[in-house]
Amino acid sequence: MSKVAVYRKEHFNAAHRLHNPALSAEENARVFGKCNSPNYHGHNYELSVKVTGEMDPVTGFVIDTKTLSKLILTEVVERFDHRNLNLDTKEFKDLNPTAENIAIVIYNLLRAKIDAKHDLKITLYETERNFVEYPA
Amino acid sequence: MSKVAVYRKEHFNAAHRLHNPALSAEENARVFGKCNSPNYHGHNYELSVKVTGEMDPVTGFVIDTKTLSKLILTEVVERFDHRNLNLDTKEFKDLNPTAENIAIVIYNLLRAKIDAKHDLKITLYETERNFVEYPA
Amino acid sequence: MSKVAVYRKEHFNAAHRLHNPALSAEENARVFGKCNSPNYHGHNYELSVKVTGEMDPVTGFVIDTKTLSKLILTEVVERFDHRNLNLDTKEFKDLNPTAENIAIVIYNLLRAKIDAKHDLKITLYETERNFVEYPA
Amino acid sequence: MSKVAVYRKEHFNAAHRLHNPALSAEENARVFGKCNSPNYHGHNYELSVKVTGEMDPVTGFVIDTKTLSKLILTEVVERFDHRNLNLDTKEFKDLNPTAENIAIVIYNLLRAKIDAKHDLKITLYETERNFVEYPA
Amino acid sequence: MSKVAVYRKEHFNAAHRLHNPALSAEENARVFGKCNSPNYHGHNYELSVKVTGEMDPVTGFVIDTKTLSKLILTEVVERFDHRNLNLDTKEFKDLNPTAENIAIVIYNLLRAKIDAKHDLKITLYETERNFVEYPA
Amino acid sequence: MSKVAVYRKEHFNAAHRLHNPALSAEENARVFGKCNSPNYHGHNYELSVKVTGEMDPVTGFVIDTKTLSKLILTEVVERFDHRNLNLDTKEFKDLNPTAENIAIVIYNLLRAKIDAKHDLKITLYETERNFVEYPA
Repeated sequence: MSKVAVYRKEHFNAAHRLHNPALSAEENARVFGKCNSPNYHGHNYELSVKVTGEMDPVTGFVIDTKTLSKLILTEVVERFDHRNLNLDTKEFKDLNPTAENIAIVIYNLLRAKIDAKHDLKITLYETERNFVEYPA
Repeated sequence: MSKVAVYRKEHFNAAHRLHNPALSAEENARVFGKCNSPNYHGHNYELSVKVTGEMDPVTGFVIDTKTLSKLILTEVVERFDHRNLNLDTKEFKDLNPTAENIAIVIYNLLRAKIDAKHDLKITLYETERNFVEYPA
Repeated sequence: MSKVAVYRKEHFNAAHRLHNPALSAEENARVFGKCNSPNYHGHNYELSVKVTGEMDPVTGFVIDTKTLSKLILTEVVERFDHRNLNLDTKEFKDLNPTAENIAIVIYNLLRAKIDAKHDLKITLYETERNFVEYPA
Repeated sequence: MSKVAVYRKEHFNAAHRLHNPALSAEENARVFGKCNSPNYHGHNYELSVKVTGEMDPVTGFVIDTKTLSKLILTEVVERFDHRNLNLDTKEFKDLNPTAENIAIVIYNLLRAKIDAKHDLKITLYETERNFVEYPA
Repeated sequence: MSKVAVYRKEHFNAAHRLHNPALSAEENARVFGKCNSPNYHGHNYELSVKVTGEMDPVTGFVIDTKTLSKLILTEVVERFDHRNLNLDTKEFKDLNPTAENIAIVIYNLLRAKIDAKHDLKITLYETERNFVEYPA
Repeated sequence: MSKVAVYRKEHFNAAHRLHNPALSAEENARVFGKCNSPNYHGHNYELSVKVTGEMDPVTGFVIDTKTLSKLILTEVVERFDHRNLNLDTKEFKDLNPTAENIAIVIYNLLRAKIDAKHDLKITLYETERNFVEYPA
């Protein structure tokens, strides 16, 4: 039987700042531009989670989107929503919160909770015009 | 020559209810929650059809989107729009109309009418936040 | 001090059928077309609620959107979401559930719960391309 | 001659925190909830500016949207984009940055630069589901 | 009885060029910038038509959106879709096709066909970020 | 290390006409329909550029979206925005500007400027409902 992909979208609003402590202040300003602004800025992060697998013949679901929604709320939204990613989260205490890194962190948080028989992919929108996908 | 994918989006509005007659009323309520509501609820289904193949060098088209649009209207929209999927369609008389199953039914309806040299993929949005893709 | 308008959007998914029992079957079919389909169809209704008034100088809010969101969920979404408007609700037992009538019903439900010093307006989207506003 | 309204949308990404220093920590937490989170959170603010007036018969414009866009970029976006509204701007040093207050501040910044013969209205989207309009 | 507003959205794709023959080539270039480009450019025009009035107690409609849709298709879309507004239409033969003027032309075309007891308003989107409303 | 995909969206507004000089006028009209309209029509083209590769461990970026944005503006938007694709560009002087061909041209323009270690994919939206992807 062919596989089906199921998507669920959720969102969270957070502050962040791009900064690498291994670089000088000048290098940080040059590399990250206004995203290095010292007092943080923020985004409405839109998150799309794709789970791929075979349908359960009893339910007609690959995964119940209500279950998937609750999992994203528990593992991701409660952790990051209305937080400062750099200051308030252990995940980004020593990790630069680029969209790429946030997507990988979210992937790892959800991968640990989703049945290994299912494939998982994350799309994270920092804005409508800038977004990332992991794994590619 | 590399292949190009062409997408056309259409939509239909339908009522449905998730229910498996092999399960008890209690099991149906537990598994499908409010989607098992006995008198049906409904959605604006948004449908994206992806056709992949080589461009015709005369037209510069993989497939004319006007042709693809007409095919989707004839095969899918006229069949399901403003219908009760469970009661009014032969396709879901004995098949639970989850988004997964609706996408597979639409794939099969269109696959029969699209040139075998073209690949086909269906994305079906039940809501802006819940959608499925087949084949994955 | 000038007034500010605050908007909050919520949504619900419901089945309905347009039908006036005072008309004959032929007249119902002619007037309402496919919206008169006997076994119901459905929509993702998108609801925008506008509350206008003066800001509270202590909070900087006209109305807290968290409060407004909870009110809409309690009064509107829990009442209509995943329901058949014609069969499952007392509001539309004897009232044709056109978008116009649904918007007026929602207005009256919320008007009873929102401080009289605030103005209220409802926008109800039946689809992205068909929507109504009350009062106009 | 009847008047025409012209709209231009721009956006900025900023961090903020809702907090009233005249309230206790407990009252701030109760009133503002997670929006009072001490290390800030953030949003993609979407801004719509409406300018109403009579068309210039030579240009067929009420106001050139290129001119309006530049004005919004100079007066609003350069001031607030990638900033912490509470810490980095003089406008919100002593003013709680609720959506209501941000809209009024933007109105006043633009009102000073737009010809008095034109009416002005601001719509500010904090998220897709929460937004405000000033003057109402 | 209070009035209700009904909206219907349609769209058309057209080429145009902003140019006033009473101005010199230099003045046209200065005033209209790249919109004065001699060989035309184009847009996906999105059109929202608002009709306001009292509900018909028999139908529960202010105006049937199917009727309104057909009227917009006949009067506006068939006239302007896939056309060069400057070269192919009598309406813009001697009228500069700014968004303001296109909205007024569409208003007049529809006003002649909509019952005088109904109010009419046009919103025309040239892009997602530039749009106009008539009457304001 | 797994790869990450980074997307950046930009847009341009252009006129075009579908026409193959190797076909007769009658064949062109039959094949391309209203898209063959002699005086051109136009679109708001929305462009999504996907760059896939490994993250730079210093920046946490696959590619800086500011860099990617500037590249798209220089190579694509300045070339095609507010132009007539058939008359004003050397790329479509002898190439039919179907969405498929425009996507391939954009791919080739950007492929020449993006590091060979990165994969590249183009999605071009002619309208919200018609779009293409290259390579598929």
